Amino acid sequence: MKAVKVGICGLGTVGSGTFNVLTGNAQEITRRAGREIIIQQVGSRRDNPAADTSNTDVTRDIFDVATNPEIDIVVELIGGYDVAKKLVLLAIENGKHVVTANKALIAEHGTEIFAAAEAKGVSVMYEAGIAGGIPIVKALREGLAGNKINWLAGIINGTGNFILTEMRDKGRDFADVLKEAQELGYAEADPTFDVEGIDAAHKLTILSSIAYGIPLQFENCFCEGIGGITPEDVQYAEELGYRIKHLGVSSRTARGIDLRVHPTLIPEKRSIAKIDGVLNAIMVNGDAVGDTLFSGPGAGAGPTASAVVADIIDLARLIDAPASSRVHHLGYKQVDDTKVLPIEDIETAYYLRIPALDKTGVLANIATILSERGINIEALIQKEQAEGEEIVQVILLTHIIQEKIMNDAISAIQALEGTQGDVTRIRVEYLV
Amino acid sequence: MKAVKVGICGLGTVGSGTFNVLTGNAQEITRRAGREIIIQQVGSRRDNPAADTSNTDVTRDIFDVATNPEIDIVVELIGGYDVAKKLVLLAIENGKHVVTANKALIAEHGTEIFAAAEAKGVSVMYEAGIAGGIPIVKALREGLAGNKINWLAGIINGTGNFILTEMRDKGRDFADVLKEAQELGYAEADPTFDVEGIDAAHKLTILSSIAYGIPLQFENCFCEGIGGITPEDVQYAEELGYRIKHLGVSSRTARGIDLRVHPTLIPEKRSIAKIDGVLNAIMVNGDAVGDTLFSGPGAGAGPTASAVVADIIDLARLIDAPASSRVHHLGYKQVDDTKVLPIEDIETAYYLRIPALDKTGVLANIATILSERGINIEALIQKEQAEGEEIVQVILLTHIIQEKIMNDAISAIQALEGTQGDVTRIRVEYLV
Repeated sequence: MKAVKVGICGLGTVGSGTFNVLTGNAQEITRRAGREIIIQQVGSRRDNPAADTSNTDVTRDIFDVATNPEIDIVVELIGGYDVAKKLVLLAIENGKHVVTANKALIAEHGTEIFAAAEAKGVSVMYEAGIAGGIPIVKALREGLAGNKINWLAGIINGTGNFILTEMRDKGRDFADVLKEAQELGYAEADPTFDVEGIDAAHKLTILSSIAYGIPLQFENCFCEGIGGITPEDVQYAEELGYRIKHLGVSSRTARGIDLRVHPTLIPEKRSIAKIDGVLNAIMVNGDAVGDTLFSGPGAGAGPTASAVVADIIDLARLIDAPASSRVHHLGYKQVDDTKVLPIEDIETAYYLRIPALDKTGVLANIATILSERGINIEALIQKEQAEGEEIVQVILLTHIIQEKIMNDAISAIQALEGTQGDVTRIRVEYLV
Repeated sequence: MKAVKVGICGLGTVGSGTFNVLTGNAQEITRRAGREIIIQQVGSRRDNPAADTSNTDVTRDIFDVATNPEIDIVVELIGGYDVAKKLVLLAIENGKHVVTANKALIAEHGTEIFAAAEAKGVSVMYEAGIAGGIPIVKALREGLAGNKINWLAGIINGTGNFILTEMRDKGRDFADVLKEAQELGYAEADPTFDVEGIDAAHKLTILSSIAYGIPLQFENCFCEGIGGITPEDVQYAEELGYRIKHLGVSSRTARGIDLRVHPTLIPEKRSIAKIDGVLNAIMVNGDAVGDTLFSGPGAGAGPTASAVVADIIDLARLIDAPASSRVHHLGYKQVDDTKVLPIEDIETAYYLRIPALDKTGVLANIATILSERGINIEALIQKEQAEGEEIVQVILLTHIIQEKIMNDAISAIQALEGTQGDVTRIRVEYLV
């Protein structure tokens, strides 16, 4: 059967990883795909000693790749927004299929890109953008396609999970671990995307669209980072039988789609609570299947290349098929318009850490504020103050309540004479 | 687009589950598949109150379904060998695609069935046969297709895992828990398939073929049940930092394919060691991706139906595509002839429990036997005998050694004057 010809744009970590997997596993890949997959051209501003391209046509202009008439599939691994978008759209315009690892591009410009691809009868594949080597896009769009997906929850940023794991295992504080993560190369010099949850929100946005068949709407994804988590919170959570993870959580409720990324207490017995270090994991609950868990390495050259190459093999197998034989970009022929809930309208349980003065009546006042708003207390720890300190920490777990009611309760608690400073609030998910 | 018409054969637990998912989620499924999927006919000897077939064409002769000219996809959910095989081959002969949950049929007659299907240009899908709702066949054949798979290990029989979990959690013995499992409906009246590992060996046979591209060869899969595991072994394993699981283990070594099902000690820190109860889980190690873990419910109406329906949707999407666009039955266009290693040639670490008389020199003799054969001891526990007993239990963990050398060592230990009765041997896998 005719070989399929690939052009790789970008020769960084993932680009060189993809080059090496395609060449190193060429024999195995041909056996699987039923035809040869050839790297026809590489577009990269510079060589990378990690990939031996001496026998490959290398161009310094990535746009050459997008217009190369020999090429069937353009692999976009340059990252970023503007140039990547231009490249992908040019490839589509030239009738190429596209494979990308760029979740930011898909989450923020996917609607436009997919529409262009559909008009041209080509596909844009993006498995590598989410949770690295874990084939979660395929699981949601195909493997669990018979289900109405009820909810999903994912540890989908390895840097954040590494930081929280270190904080827990060694009692270290956030800034300290972040610095180490940067030295180890797990975190970028500018760690905002990772620790603020933006990267996770990109991924969650995509996962939710393919889970529920809703439009990509990154702008409606609530996002809270892990910078405010203290070693004490990690410790208190532990005492209560929970782990703190930076979780992307999404569910389909009668009132709308719940879509949010934030630090989350998870009961320690749940499998996903035990996913440590730079690993990623996604739980998916479907109405037929129940709970499933997918875990593995969420980043790095090999795992990301694994996903890129799987997408290439899929496209190669389907290259002679009508467009309708390929999976719809978001897993659904048509998305529906179910709205994303504003964060004030979500319902969840809460962990509260309230700095209180050690005075009679403070606890009673807090309990009254909660009770008046119909907020039930599930568990409570009151810690003695350290010597010489006036403040005691009151730690509460509440039952499930609407966020706006909790906001109001927190304002009232902070206004009490007996409390001092801000209440720390971390959402709790039971994942059942 | 033209609707795809399905005929369901068998209306037991999985058949009625599939009927209910296809009808209950019809709207969602149409949105995903891009066309309607209609249940054209059901073939079943009797009705099942779990599925309301009052508006469906029901025949008492399942072979009617296989020859029904209206039907595109025949779903075989009757189980067993002879009739199921006849049905599947008749459906293929009539140009139908087939979806089945029958791992025994595929593991033992897959080669013949796939050849017939390929000759007719149709596909036989079997995701539901392995690990219920976990889309592991799809993960191996497609999601991880860029990898050379190095090894995989799975808890792929829920009954066995339930029994071992209960034995560990409550210190109960095998026979006692088996009886409860039968009462709960987790285990069949004849539990041989589950507890002897035959069911797991069927699944492992299939997983290994699609992981490495080797022919189905159930007859070469080594198989050992869990009936010989005692609560004491579970306890000793725990003391050493391990859990005992009934594991299917398979790897691609330079000397051949390692393919075996047996009770296995796994370090308790490995995620798969924590998969408890009736859950299933599969670890897959690929050269690019590293370690991945897939877990979820391995049986039951809903989870199995989830996989059946996913296969139906895949076929529906590809119904107008050339045969080459569908995934090869074993994930490879051609399988190769890598041999399965005889069990004597495999290499693994071992747990040994040696009943010894409490006499000077016995331990030294055991150590000498091991040392003479190049077997290193990794850990050792010697338990005092219970009051009034003469026998002490010597528990050993060894380094990795070839099975035939271990067999020889065990014979020599059993021949010692200072030991009494059989040595218990459980293989140990580190899964790294």
